[in-house]
Amino acid sequence: MVTDGVPVNPLLTDYYQLTMMDAYLQRGMMDTAVFEFFVRKLPESRNFLIAAGLAQVLEFLEQLRFSEDALQWLNRHHHASPVLTEYLSQLRFEGDVDALPEGTVFFSDEPVLRISAPLPVAQLVESRVMNLLHFQCMIASKAARMVLAAPGKRLVDFGLRRAHGAEAGLLAARASYLAGFDGTATVLAGHDFGIPLYGTMAHSFVLAHDDERMAFENFAKIHPDNTVLLIDTYDTQRGARHVIEVAERLHAHGIRIRGVRIDSGDLDTASREVRAILDAAGLQSVTIFASGNLDESRLAALQQAGAPIDGYGVGTRMDVSDDAPYLECAYKLQAYAGQPRRKRSEGKATWPGSKQIYRRYRADGQMIGDCITLSTEEADGEPLLRPVMRGGRRIKPQPNLAEAREHARHELARLPAALRESTPATAPYPVTLSSELRALARRLDAAD
Amino acid sequence: MVTDGVPVNPLLTDYYQLTMMDAYLQRGMMDTAVFEFFVRKLPESRNFLIAAGLAQVLEFLEQLRFSEDALQWLNRHHHASPVLTEYLSQLRFEGDVDALPEGTVFFSDEPVLRISAPLPVAQLVESRVMNLLHFQCMIASKAARMVLAAPGKRLVDFGLRRAHGAEAGLLAARASYLAGFDGTATVLAGHDFGIPLYGTMAHSFVLAHDDERMAFENFAKIHPDNTVLLIDTYDTQRGARHVIEVAERLHAHGIRIRGVRIDSGDLDTASREVRAILDAAGLQSVTIFASGNLDESRLAALQQAGAPIDGYGVGTRMDVSDDAPYLECAYKLQAYAGQPRRKRSEGKATWPGSKQIYRRYRADGQMIGDCITLSTEEADGEPLLRPVMRGGRRIKPQPNLAEAREHARHELARLPAALRESTPATAPYPVTLSSELRALARRLDAAD
Repeated sequence: MVTDGVPVNPLLTDYYQLTMMDAYLQRGMMDTAVFEFFVRKLPESRNFLIAAGLAQVLEFLEQLRFSEDALQWLNRHHHASPVLTEYLSQLRFEGDVDALPEGTVFFSDEPVLRISAPLPVAQLVESRVMNLLHFQCMIASKAARMVLAAPGKRLVDFGLRRAHGAEAGLLAARASYLAGFDGTATVLAGHDFGIPLYGTMAHSFVLAHDDERMAFENFAKIHPDNTVLLIDTYDTQRGARHVIEVAERLHAHGIRIRGVRIDSGDLDTASREVRAILDAAGLQSVTIFASGNLDESRLAALQQAGAPIDGYGVGTRMDVSDDAPYLECAYKLQAYAGQPRRKRSEGKATWPGSKQIYRRYRADGQMIGDCITLSTEEADGEPLLRPVMRGGRRIKPQPNLAEAREHARHELARLPAALRESTPATAPYPVTLSSELRALARRLDAAD
Repeated sequence: MVTDGVPVNPLLTDYYQLTMMDAYLQRGMMDTAVFEFFVRKLPESRNFLIAAGLAQVLEFLEQLRFSEDALQWLNRHHHASPVLTEYLSQLRFEGDVDALPEGTVFFSDEPVLRISAPLPVAQLVESRVMNLLHFQCMIASKAARMVLAAPGKRLVDFGLRRAHGAEAGLLAARASYLAGFDGTATVLAGHDFGIPLYGTMAHSFVLAHDDERMAFENFAKIHPDNTVLLIDTYDTQRGARHVIEVAERLHAHGIRIRGVRIDSGDLDTASREVRAILDAAGLQSVTIFASGNLDESRLAALQQAGAPIDGYGVGTRMDVSDDAPYLECAYKLQAYAGQPRRKRSEGKATWPGSKQIYRRYRADGQMIGDCITLSTEEADGEPLLRPVMRGGRRIKPQPNLAEAREHARHELARLPAALRESTPATAPYPVTLSSELRALARRLDAAD
């Protein structure tokens, strides 16, 4: 068990990567290219982002190779040139990667990952590297908001069914766990990543029985250690009273109801009504778990209201990051053959060269501000990008998922208070550019 | 080549499916269950939805089986009961499926797919069936809006990099092609589904050269039949003038520039400026392709403005369906052991029983209205759900992707005019419920 991802055919790339590679190869443009992945601009509803997905990127790079089937298909259907076919048949990723450790807080324009490799291969991997990093950074960042909104509550990912396909469901479980969730309902995420699994029953379980009490009793007898009963199939308050009846009958069998789940209606009101009904029957130990259309705003509102809810199942709105379902990210050529490069397209200009981030902290550990520098510079603070792969091999040891999760927890604790809120911070976190970096950009613009 | 999807471990399911199965098995609840997949409520920005994803669902059901590794893992880590383990080891999907053909227009509360199978297996497949149908229905519906917004223009999916993982990228290419797109940049979608591929160069290609003209010339010489040059890396108008220079030089080699691409700035203004520059140099035959942050509203605005653009690359906003990144869909138990069932949770009540949709048309073919009935009823119009699988085997022949795409085209042509607009229709499409269906719901409520 526990792989770092889903092996994927290297044909999962954009067609232009192949047409460009062909041209690079035929022109002998094989020098080292430096590409950086970064987010141009944070969504309005995000005060910070969390780095995630590096483990899957490294696994992708290590496993990259074209099968005979893929090469033949390219030849037959797309007239791949002999030089391209030959290159692809031998292709291994033997480049260098520097990156923010998973769980690190980052901001706009800050490089999250840097790849240095011969131009054709650094180009080819763009599509999948972005596809992997973008998604997990987005989900970890969304999930972190929920973790901050509901401190001390159990949070479980329920989002597989409406996640965008298989890999999104699997990796949303990973990214949310990394950001501080307690577990997931997605069994494969337990299998592949060792993430704790949660789940008991759906409405269909209750509907398949002629009587709600019978459904509860059957479930409890078969899962005496995992008895969380879903009580809103017909009427939530009646469901709570049915729990009391069943709890009394099961008491004789030595079975204790651990919790109830409410999945519809006004969760604040419903949880209070249910709490009162259960408490009046002496069932104070039965916890209340809530789900249904939740996001960090609703969690914050329920917390603020003091709703007697012990844990939350969060599904769709996290797994699709509904208020910001994409990040304005890019993977851009910053240097080729030792020469820094700069795109100047309207509204999409980039900062040239291979870069580093230095972060400064207060004495109590709180983050104060970042400076983006050239990677050859030294500056005050902690350099955030670290070498993670050299010559195509991972530098060992890389943090495992539990360590990345602990790092994320530590990072969230160091965030300035204003950035921890669900609402947009009035002032952004200070990120400056070094004077050397600005001077290089000016030089490149002037030389053109 | 051409499979119908990505084979996936059956552990890609929700944990509660397994706890419920265990209880069903131990209680002998093995009768036939009828589940239906439907969308409760259309997003405000959608006037209709398009069915897509059935081919992948049928493939998933046909291939469903638990590996020895999966079973051992469940035993070791989740104490799966012997009865559950034994059942899973033998498990094959041998049920029936009825569904809307891919490409069919549908509305809220209308069943898109019905599964009839023994309760434990019909329950188990819920998570992945929803995961597959939800995503492709959402993307096909979004893409159809773009097809309607830009009639006669070439539309190409560019969304892989910000799609939510590998499968989302792959299946967004399929769903958008089904809805009427001309092709995709995602190579694997060409390999797996035979979808036409598009792509030439990224900004990095231009940046890797010391001079934009050199980049253009190198590319054209190596890809003389696919010369679409990206002209906005530094300055779009200067890029257009460089195209003229290069076109003159290449003329001597018998190479013709086919098109240019603009990926930033105000596309209306930029395309007019570029058109004028090219035309003045006699390059009327060079087409203009535009990309960058496009969605159906921008396409409609560019069309309305009469921008001289011949085709569009649409990426992120389609592949994540950014204005509606999920549908309020459900997969609900409608009958068990011959008895109709109805969930009544607040705001989430369902219509009971196995159902059918009848659609009526005007003499000219335009859709007039639908009636949702019990599947045992007869009604006026065309019944939309068709048998697609019996006893676990696909009914042959099922439409291939090209046929589904043709069906979608035909469906879009039959939509009432008000539903074809990018803006919300003032009156929804008429969908009624049969009196028998309403009477059944009342009977179930009264009996409780």
